[in-house]
Formats: sequence, structure tokens, C-alpha cells
Amino acid sequence: MGTPRILTTPAEDAYAYPLLLRHLLANVARQTSAEIVSGQWRLTYDALLDRVTRLATLLSERGVRAGDTVAVMDWDSHRYLECYFAIPMMGAVLQTVNVRLSPAQIEYTLRESGAVFALHHADFAPLFDAIQPNLPAIRGAIPMEEDAKADSYEALIAATAPSFRFEDFDENAIATTFHTTGTTGNPKQVFFSHRQLVLHTLALAATLANQPSGQGLRRGDVYMPMTPMFHVHAWGLPFVATMLGLKQVYPGRYDPRRLLALKERERVSFSHCVPTILRMLLDARDDGESLGPWTVIIGGSALAPALAEEAARAGLSTLVGFGMSETGPVVALARAPGGDVADLCRAGFPIPLVHARVDAERGGELLLRAPWLTQGYGSQAASDALWEGGWLHTGDVAATDGDGAIRIVDRLKDVIKTGGEWVSSIAIEELLMELPGVAEAAIIGVPDGKWGERPVAFVVAAAAGSPPDTKLLREGLMRHVDAGRLSGYAIPERVFVLETLPRTSVGKVDKRALRARLATDAANAAMTI
Amino acid sequence: MGTPRILTTPAEDAYAYPLLLRHLLANVARQTSAEIVSGQWRLTYDALLDRVTRLATLLSERGVRAGDTVAVMDWDSHRYLECYFAIPMMGAVLQTVNVRLSPAQIEYTLRESGAVFALHHADFAPLFDAIQPNLPAIRGAIPMEEDAKADSYEALIAATAPSFRFEDFDENAIATTFHTTGTTGNPKQVFFSHRQLVLHTLALAATLANQPSGQGLRRGDVYMPMTPMFHVHAWGLPFVATMLGLKQVYPGRYDPRRLLALKERERVSFSHCVPTILRMLLDARDDGESLGPWTVIIGGSALAPALAEEAARAGLSTLVGFGMSETGPVVALARAPGGDVADLCRAGFPIPLVHARVDAERGGELLLRAPWLTQGYGSQAASDALWEGGWLHTGDVAATDGDGAIRIVDRLKDVIKTGGEWVSSIAIEELLMELPGVAEAAIIGVPDGKWGERPVAFVVAAAAGSPPDTKLLREGLMRHVDAGRLSGYAIPERVFVLETLPRTSVGKVDKRALRARLATDAANAAMTI
Repeated sequence: MGTPRILTTPAEDAYAYPLLLRHLLANVARQTSAEIVSGQWRLTYDALLDRVTRLATLLSERGVRAGDTVAVMDWDSHRYLECYFAIPMMGAVLQTVNVRLSPAQIEYTLRESGAVFALHHADFAPLFDAIQPNLPAIRGAIPMEEDAKADSYEALIAATAPSFRFEDFDENAIATTFHTTGTTGNPKQVFFSHRQLVLHTLALAATLANQPSGQGLRRGDVYMPMTPMFHVHAWGLPFVATMLGLKQVYPGRYDPRRLLALKERERVSFSHCVPTILRMLLDARDDGESLGPWTVIIGGSALAPALAEEAARAGLSTLVGFGMSETGPVVALARAPGGDVADLCRAGFPIPLVHARVDAERGGELLLRAPWLTQGYGSQAASDALWEGGWLHTGDVAATDGDGAIRIVDRLKDVIKTGGEWVSSIAIEELLMELPGVAEAAIIGVPDGKWGERPVAFVVAAAAGSPPDTKLLREGLMRHVDAGRLSGYAIPERVFVLETLPRTSVGKVDKRALRARLATDAANAAMTI
Repeated sequence: MGTPRILTTPAEDAYAYPLLLRHLLANVARQTSAEIVSGQWRLTYDALLDRVTRLATLLSERGVRAGDTVAVMDWDSHRYLECYFAIPMMGAVLQTVNVRLSPAQIEYTLRESGAVFALHHADFAPLFDAIQPNLPAIRGAIPMEEDAKADSYEALIAATAPSFRFEDFDENAIATTFHTTGTTGNPKQVFFSHRQLVLHTLALAATLANQPSGQGLRRGDVYMPMTPMFHVHAWGLPFVATMLGLKQVYPGRYDPRRLLALKERERVSFSHCVPTILRMLLDARDDGESLGPWTVIIGGSALAPALAEEAARAGLSTLVGFGMSETGPVVALARAPGGDVADLCRAGFPIPLVHARVDAERGGELLLRAPWLTQGYGSQAASDALWEGGWLHTGDVAATDGDGAIRIVDRLKDVIKTGGEWVSSIAIEELLMELPGVAEAAIIGVPDGKWGERPVAFVVAAAAGSPPDTKLLREGLMRHVDAGRLSGYAIPERVFVLETLPRTSVGKVDKRALRARLATDAANAAMTI
């Protein structure tokens, strides 16, 4: 069939442009007067770039070389943003440490990352000191504090010259690594190259700016992350916001009142978070306080329409972005020109370059191809399982709507097979959350001799001390059965009312913990409907 | 300094995603209900993709293989759009033939391209038949007509199955070639790879969607090119519009009245053209007819503020996009949130990933790096001159404003050195065009024994039969000298009034022809001011 032709007479000096994170900064500082706001700091983009160069100089002076891994343990800050650029731009690897893991897991991830150097916020100094003896690869560390305390990040940056010369290298060089936070086994390490992050940034920037009004991000917006920077590059938004020269606000450790105060003070117009944080923001606001205009992309877990509607009443424009640790993360984004809430709660439309396909032979699992998906985990066997057949296996069951949007039906492992029917735990949860008195809901499947599996429900009351009326819950779900929206098999016999739902370090409901609890003491608190 | 680390445990089956034009179509057909409008045709995106596959099948059946070059000679049509995708997606090379060149030049470009197959509109059949004997590499051709005439494109597409299987290949494979239309020597061939076009598409889509209101392109817009598709990929917009699933309108051979009628009928909201076409549109409209809302990016030549203001009065939002045949083309785009005309007439802000630098040692020449610049011409020597020192040499003299925007001062070869001072021909032209009675103006430098060079002006009257008052022209220019905006040396002694300015095949003023005319008969028509 012939061979595609490659240019045979390139200029000897032609610049073979590698897709490196450095190049996202090509022209931004000259084009913007916006600031990076973080704690007591307000930095221009010129200052940001100067500090990125100083940080690279400092790390280089401390012996960090291209190919080395540098671990960062911090809350969201301008310092973290500087690490996002400086460390990969040196040719080193940025390991973003999930500081919400257990000490043992943090030690595990640091060890597996092979980090030789660490930058850690003062809050994590005791932890870091405790585990460092078990991390022989670590050759040095710099503490991070808000003030320019001696020998800490700010003082050292101020005292270091911006003399590092960034050079080009292979765009497939690893820029970042971090660990997934699955609920089974040890966290798994994922890897992203410069090329992948640059392409993710371009495709995401193009997607967000083409969203309907109030559902995207454009030049002129003010950005504040509410998904931590240790979690999948804060969904890649710091790279997008920096490339566009936007005003950025980094809120430190998340506290709902402080997030709301920063939003107000700095006129934040765009953020992203998991449903749990959205719930906390809604609970933390003053009665009747409007939070808008504020576009908030929701991911990590399903966005229940009831929650989205409550957010809308508070002035927030919420919509779903879909992705996972393995996918960079963004592969799809909801949109609805008319603002239809059900549409905005779908995983949405695959973004440019993303191929998505639903594999009927594997229970409807969503399979993906995109230029920014991790090419593997640390382990070859796990890598091969992830990419079996040349498609990334999401572990999510999905369906495609007539307009091309994807709906996530459930996690493959959470789907319940009962009475010969497949029932989506997410579908029951969303319907429960629409019922009066229910703030949150989780469904798990438990083995059953007669039906194969049966759904079991856990709910959190909307108001403390006012458990929902179980008769109304049953009636409410039955109405959906009568209307043909839900299978009769999906009505759980057992509903447990909990004070809170157990959650993973990134805010997802920990269904593994619920299963464990069910096997032990929780049955004592059972209310059967 | 160490070596950046490449992932050592990628999954065996991990999909190493190449940046191919094919992937711009990954998910678009499912997401849009917009149509491609062209002549009597209205195609859905499903139909477009089906026809792209049929075209590849057809060409394959006619013996076209990966690595072969296929030449296209057409006006703007859905057929051309199909060629934009099908030919490169097969691994073949699309040569977009500039049909406005002379027959001898067209023959030259076809021969240099090495095309083995041609698709040509019926309008070019006589020309093609005449030159084909001199093109021994051509093995076959298909005529293109609007109707499904036997053995022509539409009939063959209808009769061919969509059976071609597109496969992946090296992203550095050449996707397109075409010839620059410089005013000296033979046209030079430039080359663009799949990778380059995909990156240009992503960066341009992100840029346009982040423009202030009325200065960009977003989902929901209706796109119609007014720079021909044979000219630098119609500025790359067909790729952007297709990736986003926009409604697209292809206007055939440009006729000002038809362009205006299509604009109105199809609700076109975004286009691009050279200043000459803009002039024709303004002249063709009915008295007082509003053409807006219509955002039109202007490139190819400087946009004079006087013309932009006239366009604004007609309801058009015009702004400058900067690039050249060698640059894919877009490297910068004007923007002005307040709509300031002077700002919108600058070359504007380098778009993401573009490094632009003004080389003081080379007379202020603008040098560029971006991931989508041609890596060379057909000739090694010309390639090496273009890329001397690792930067692409634009041949434009530029300055950078305080806000980071680029202003093009002049073509390097058109700058006039007079009385020891550098004078910009563009600057004098723009001031002349602001004066009453002047529609167009061109300045060339001619050798002068005393001053080195002297500027000579050519103007076109705003109204036929009403040549501008030369006294007023001198007074008008002198006022700018008095105000310190223009050097006294810049006042031309000689002004010639012409019916039209000679132009190149892509609508640029042909200053070489002006110089030739000055050496011969034009002096007879001289009016001295």
C-alpha cells in the first residue's frame, strides 16, 4: 500500500519543536497583567517565571538532575504551581504525593516513585521526618512555609539566582507521576510525559472555551482549583490557566468557609471539585447567600441531579467532567446550551482526539484512546491488563446517548446483578438523593442465595437528628418502578442511616469500607424499609 | 546533567497515539447535527465522513498509494474539504494547486510536486489537458463538477463503497504541500506533516475560542472561508471547523455578491480574507446594507485602520491574523476587548506554543519557532536560508508593543532607507488610505543618488473619475510629520494614480510589478504633489 512520505530536505537548522511543558510558557508573561494569588502572595506572570527558574537553579544546586524524581507534599499554592513547571522543565520527574493517604501508604508511594528529593509543607514535616529513615533514596529535602523562614522554600528562592538554562529534550520524557487511589490493594503509579500534558492542555483549553456560556473557561475568567494539586494535576487546569495567562487563586488547605471567602474576594469564576466538596460549600454558605456566578466542573464521582439543582439554586453552574487518574484526566465534558440539568450530569461529550467506545462484550465497559492516557503502571502485568487489546479499560460501564454524549451507568465492579437483571448502583443512589430528607446515598450489592445479589442502601440524613421516613423512601422509589424508570429488583430491602459516608482520600464513597462495615457492626443500626 | 527518563514499563498493547488528521474526526459526527453547505449540496457530518471514506476507496482503486501525491485544482467546495481529509488520511500527500497562477507556473508547481493523480474542477479542464503532456508523472485524473455527471467526482463517489480502512502511520508523514507565491523567482514548495496540522488545529481552536466577543470563533458559529482552500489550508480553519462540528459553507468561486448572499442565507458568522476581498465586499454591498454580525479575520497583507473602520460601519468585526505560507499559517492573532481598531490592526499576540523574537541585528526581522512551521522548501539551500540559526526567518520587520502584541512594520525588502532613516512603506500606505479620496495605496522605494532611496506612491481613487486632490494628500501627510508620527523623509515626491493596483495570485500588492511599471510607461501618468 506504499509508505507515507517523510520530508527529505528539512533545513539543517530547522527547529524540531518538542512538545515540552516549557513551551506552554512561550509568550504568556508578555501578554497578561493577571496575578497568581496564594496566601499572602500576589505574583505577576513575570515573577512566576522568574521563580520557576530560581527553583530549578536551587534544585540543581542541591544535586537534582534530569531523570531524578522530586516528590512534593503541599496544599494548593503558588509554590506547587512552580513545581508543576520547574521540575519537569529540568527534565526531572514531579511526583505529586497524595497527602491524604495513610502514613504507610504515603511511604509506599514515595518509595515506589524512587524520589531522591522532597519538597514538603510544614504540616507534613512530622510525617516526613518519621518515614524518611525508610526512604534511603531521598538525598535531600526543603520545607515549604508561607513565610520566608530561613532554609525554607521562600527564603531559598529569594536567595537563589534565576540562572538555570532550560534545554530541550525528548517530548516523551516523563514529566509527572502519582498514584491512583483505588480502594483495593496498594495505590498504583501512573506516568505522564511532557507530550501528553501539552496535548491535554491544548485539547482541554479548546474544549472549555467552546462551551456554552457559564459552562466553560475563557480568557477573562478567574481560576481556583478545589480538587487538590496532588490529584491528577488538579484536572490539568493549572496548565490551561497558565498557558492562557489567567488570574489564578490557590487556596491552601481546603476549608469551605475560606474557599467561599476567596471566591468572593478574588472574584473567582471557574473551579472544579468532587461532589463532596460541592456539598460542603453548599452547607457552609450563609442562608440565602448566592455563590454565583461561578462555574464548577464536577468529577471524581457521579453528580446527582438533585445536588446539581440545589447548587443551581445557590447560583452555581455545575456540570460534569469525566476522567480518571489514568487518563490525565479529562476525556469528556458535559454541555447543554439550554442548561438542562440531566444533560449536565452526564459524563458528556468526548473532547477532541478522544476515541471512546462501549464494549458490549465486557458488560458495556467504556474503552478509550487519547494522546494523553498513561501508557502503563509501574508493574508490567497491571499495565498490560489496563491496555488489553490496545484500548484503555476504564472499569466504568457506560452508554452513549443519541446526541453522542456518554452516560456512566456504574463502576463495572459496583453493578448489581439481581434476579437476572443488571441494576446500576448509581441510578438508585441518584433517585434516593431526590427524596425528601436524604442528603447522600450509597448502594452496594451483597451476595444473596436466591437473587444472586441484592442492593443494600446507606443514606445520610439531610438534617442531623431527622432520619428520613423510610416509608416515604420506599414509596418514592416505587413510583420510579411504576413509571418504568427503575426495575422492581432495584428496591433495597435494607437501608442504613449513617452520620457520614466513608470516603477515599480523594472524596469518593468507599464502597469497600461499606461492605466491611456491613459484615460487622452496622447491621445494628439497620432500618428496614 | 542527567537524562530525562522515558517510561520503561509501557503496556505492550498501549496505544501510542500518533497525531494524524484522521483523529480530528474521532468523535465529531456523533456530536453535531450541523451541515456542510456547498453549491446544491447539504451534507451531515456522517455523510461527510462516509464520502471521505468513499474518496479514499476510489483513489485507492485508481492506484493511489501511501506516499503518492494527489493534486487538487478546485474552487472552495465540500469536495475540496473531502480531499483535505481523505488524501492525507490515506498516507498520500495533498498538493493544493494555486489555480490563480499562470499556466506555466501551474505546470511548474504540478511538476515539482511529483503529483501522480489530479482532481480538477471542470473550469480547469482545458488548462489541465493542455499541460498534462508535460507532466509524465500523472497517471490519472478525475474531473470535478457540481452535478453527478458520468465519470466525474460526484458520480464516482456515489458508485464507490466506503470500504477503505484508514490505518495509523508516522505522524511526521507529509500531509500537504503547496507553493508559496512570492513575487520573485519560481514559487517555492512548502511541506506540512500530520503532526503539524493537528497541533495548528488545536492551538488555533483554543486561541479563537478565547477571543473577546465578536473577535473569535466558537461552537455555534457558522464558518465560510473567503481565503481560497488552495492557499495555506484556508488558514487552517476548515480543520478547526470540522473538529468542532460547526456548520460550514463553501462558496465556490469567489464572487462578492454571491458571498454576501450566502452570508445572509446561511447566517455565516465567521470568515477570513485578504484586504482586497474585504474591499470588494464593501463595494458590492447595497447602500446602507449592514453585513453584520460577521467576524472576519484579515491576513495576507496589512489591514489599514481606515479600511477596518469602514468595515465596522458596515457591521463587520475585522481583526488581523498573522502568518505566512511557511507558517501553517497562523502564528499570531490580534485581540482588543474594547474593540480598539488600532489594536485590531496589529499582527497581534503570538498564539500558544509560538516563540516570536525580533532580531535587532537583522533590521528588526521577526523570527519564529512553533510546532507547525514548514521544516524546509523543496531545495536544501532555500531551506537552510529559511532556518538559519534555528529560527524561521519571516522576512518581516516587526516591533513588540508593551502589551506583548506584535506590529509588522514592513516587509524587510520593502523598507525604505532614505536620508539615513528607515521608513516603513506600510506606515505611509496606511496614512494615505486615511486621506479623503484614496481607496488604496502602495509605496515602493526607488534608488536615489542623493538620498539613497526615495518613496514613490501609487494610489487608487475612492471613486472612479475623481482622482484625489494631490495638494490635500501632501497636506494630510505633512500633518503627520508635524505631529511627529512620520519622518519628513517619508513624503513621496511622486504619486501615481492607477485604476487598480497590480496584485499577486493571493491578493497581495505586487510591488515588483509596480517597480517594473515605474521603469517603463507609468511615469506618463505621473502626478507630482
